[in-house]
Amino acid sequence: MRPKHQRFAVEPIGVIHTPFKRQPGTPIQSSMGNGDEGWADVRPQYVEGLEDLDGFDRVWLIYWLDRARPPRMTVTPFLDDRPRGVFSTRAPSRPNPIGMSCVRVLEVAGGRLRFRDADMLDGTPLIDIKPYAPCFDVFEVSRCGWLDAALKERRTAADRFVVPGEGGP
Amino acid sequence: MRPKHQRFAVEPIGVIHTPFKRQPGTPIQSSMGNGDEGWADVRPQYVEGLEDLDGFDRVWLIYWLDRARPPRMTVTPFLDDRPRGVFSTRAPSRPNPIGMSCVRVLEVAGGRLRFRDADMLDGTPLIDIKPYAPCFDVFEVSRCGWLDAALKERRTAADRFVVPGEGGP
Repeated sequence: MRPKHQRFAVEPIGVIHTPFKRQPGTPIQSSMGNGDEGWADVRPQYVEGLEDLDGFDRVWLIYWLDRARPPRMTVTPFLDDRPRGVFSTRAPSRPNPIGMSCVRVLEVAGGRLRFRDADMLDGTPLIDIKPYAPCFDVFEVSRCGWLDAALKERRTAADRFVVPGEGGP
Repeated sequence: MRPKHQRFAVEPIGVIHTPFKRQPGTPIQSSMGNGDEGWADVRPQYVEGLEDLDGFDRVWLIYWLDRARPPRMTVTPFLDDRPRGVFSTRAPSRPNPIGMSCVRVLEVAGGRLRFRDADMLDGTPLIDIKPYAPCFDVFEVSRCGWLDAALKERRTAADRFVVPGEGGP
């Protein structure tokens, strides 16, 4: 019998490198940046798992938002100006600070995945990679809650979610 | 200075319930099932974070594949008949067994999120919820690697990734 809310250990499979050293100026989503390049260096014991990835135009990078503020249940998202339940946002300050970005694959070679559309901080721990496929990931939706109204300007992150002194202003 | 590959602790925010007690017969993706209903019960300390979620047609459920086999760097995916690098697949037996499913929201009330398009086992630990939005999650792609050729029949999971005796046959 497992304990009801057992904790699990996440072990980074590599490190993501990007041009972004601090949160201000970092794109808030991979779809909202300027196509900045980044790369992920995968640890030797996981390199074999990269096989076949280069056939995909895009992949999901799943990573640990290691410089996010402590979790809050209500946050004011980058794209909105009033507080929302954290799970209705992509804000970093979540109970398990897991981020996911769909990036364009440029090259996979020698344990390094080069990609475009970086939106994470330099040095972010990579925890998984998954292929992006319309048959798995594209769904028709008609309602996107608060986002429907809020989606207009702000394309770069403010400093709301940065730990002071840790990549902050 | 942080250690280079620091481990992180994932703490479940709740538990997912579905009609699926064992992997055979479980849809391999939320997009490939029969619209089966499930629900997630969120732990009391995280319920406030569900606010505003009910305005979204769909959300990502991020969960821990707690009954997956140990990680392998090469797996034969459900949808293919030859071995592939694990990161080019959605197979459960990955270094960090994190699953993600885009499900249709039916109701959010009293700490419970009811949804359609369940594709995970009953009792799966929930670790995050994110809103699904085309502006974040929909990208045009022309190449989906091995999937392009393989996508035809198999819509339910075989028993390849089950730990014997743990939800397995």
